[in-house]
Amino acid sequence: MTPSSRFSINQMTVKQLSLPDLVDACVRLGVGGVGLWREPVAAYGLDAAAKLVREAGLEVTSLCRGGFFTAIDPAERAVAMADNRAAVDEAATLGTDTLVLVSGGLPAGSRDLAGARERVSEALSSLTPYAASRGVRLAIEPLHPMFASDRCVVSTLDQALTLASPFPSSQVGVVVDTYHVWWDDTAPAAVARAGAAGRIHAFQLADWVTPLPAGVLHGRGQLGDGSIDFARWHSLVEAAGYAGPIEVELFNGELWAGDGVAVLEETARRFAEVLA
Amino acid sequence: MTPSSRFSINQMTVKQLSLPDLVDACVRLGVGGVGLWREPVAAYGLDAAAKLVREAGLEVTSLCRGGFFTAIDPAERAVAMADNRAAVDEAATLGTDTLVLVSGGLPAGSRDLAGARERVSEALSSLTPYAASRGVRLAIEPLHPMFASDRCVVSTLDQALTLASPFPSSQVGVVVDTYHVWWDDTAPAAVARAGAAGRIHAFQLADWVTPLPAGVLHGRGQLGDGSIDFARWHSLVEAAGYAGPIEVELFNGELWAGDGVAVLEETARRFAEVLA
Repeated sequence: MTPSSRFSINQMTVKQLSLPDLVDACVRLGVGGVGLWREPVAAYGLDAAAKLVREAGLEVTSLCRGGFFTAIDPAERAVAMADNRAAVDEAATLGTDTLVLVSGGLPAGSRDLAGARERVSEALSSLTPYAASRGVRLAIEPLHPMFASDRCVVSTLDQALTLASPFPSSQVGVVVDTYHVWWDDTAPAAVARAGAAGRIHAFQLADWVTPLPAGVLHGRGQLGDGSIDFARWHSLVEAAGYAGPIEVELFNGELWAGDGVAVLEETARRFAEVLA
Repeated sequence: MTPSSRFSINQMTVKQLSLPDLVDACVRLGVGGVGLWREPVAAYGLDAAAKLVREAGLEVTSLCRGGFFTAIDPAERAVAMADNRAAVDEAATLGTDTLVLVSGGLPAGSRDLAGARERVSEALSSLTPYAASRGVRLAIEPLHPMFASDRCVVSTLDQALTLASPFPSSQVGVVVDTYHVWWDDTAPAAVARAGAAGRIHAFQLADWVTPLPAGVLHGRGQLGDGSIDFARWHSLVEAAGYAGPIEVELFNGELWAGDGVAVLEETARRFAEVLA
């Protein structure tokens, strides 16, 4: 079975695969796109990774991730901004135009969500010109509200769009990830607005399954195993004018324990099934 | 130390205490209000429980809980409605005017959140006249979005207010629980609207702490241990005109493992501290 040409596998879904094994499997299975993560790319070597995916003819649909913009201490903020410029450079080297941003949680001891969101906005002002100069778009990803304190103070598409709005849509947009927004009855209207503004920079899929594991980070379900109506979200995003790649990004301990190539095959099969 | 006269202890916070021990401790510590749960009340005996709290001079600030309105099957719905009428009767017997409603999650196999919310609305239409005839208000509690699939399809104060809006405010309102709404930047405006409409029927406190435990239900933090700015939420609710009891409702395995009276004392101390 050939997966849809829009299917892209996020590297984290099959993190048990080495980069060469992932690339091999994609080529063999006809998967045309990969979403990469900075850490495994750095471990393999940035230039070598770029060469590997380029020569295999794979599209790098996004790089995860920049962000973590919420520190208060100026020295910590400077470190974060330098790291984000490096992430932009890495995206450019890998040949992707999309850097995913996870905004960061509350600094230790802080209870000021609004202030943290304000610092995300300031960081975007600083980073955007640099990213634009490298041909890289910044894609703000709202994370599920259960991550608001420790990972991402941007919890809804509305918030992400508000943060993006001061910048040209070619430079700052949003990630629509079903896992993070499926519960939100204001998200469909936000998707429409984002699409009309040209700000949907990435569309990612993962299913919502319960019970959530301890720490909740590694509980994303294989497509079809949970509560999300993917056909509906796909229709909403399509209706908003998005015609780009669709990444499947699963953080799931059980999938990581399995054979990576088998997980990739199954994910492609599920992708075709839930979007049929 | 005498806790504020508005402090109410939700029975679930100290579920290791028998009802007589809870009542004794409240009287001894000067705690004037308790939020009760149906299951321990039924186990002790409804009439005996009502007599016990009445003779101790305690105010029953709410009864948890009715709801679970989302079944599709007509027979299941009929059972749920009968159970909710029983919950109304129990509230009346216990002398509280407030029945907390947790709406229910998605039925097995369903991915239709909007449909489930519609069935909540229908159930309210059916239950409200009965509750009004018994002098009991229905208080819709939005639960954190991480409970949307398995416990409560009502995730925001906005949704709860929309559900309440067809009914008189004296009959249907909302619960503002900091644990469930603290992340939501639209919640402050919703609190103001709810207050202006006279629809804040209960105000509950719990802190947001991470990492969340497996299943996420029992991870509510003791006041002051987490990310929530209680003084701010208290101000918002006060500014909206709410002057009723403030319940502390913690579901927390560590607290349950401790001495119940000590937990009650500590909770009263923290309450005074975080609202100072």
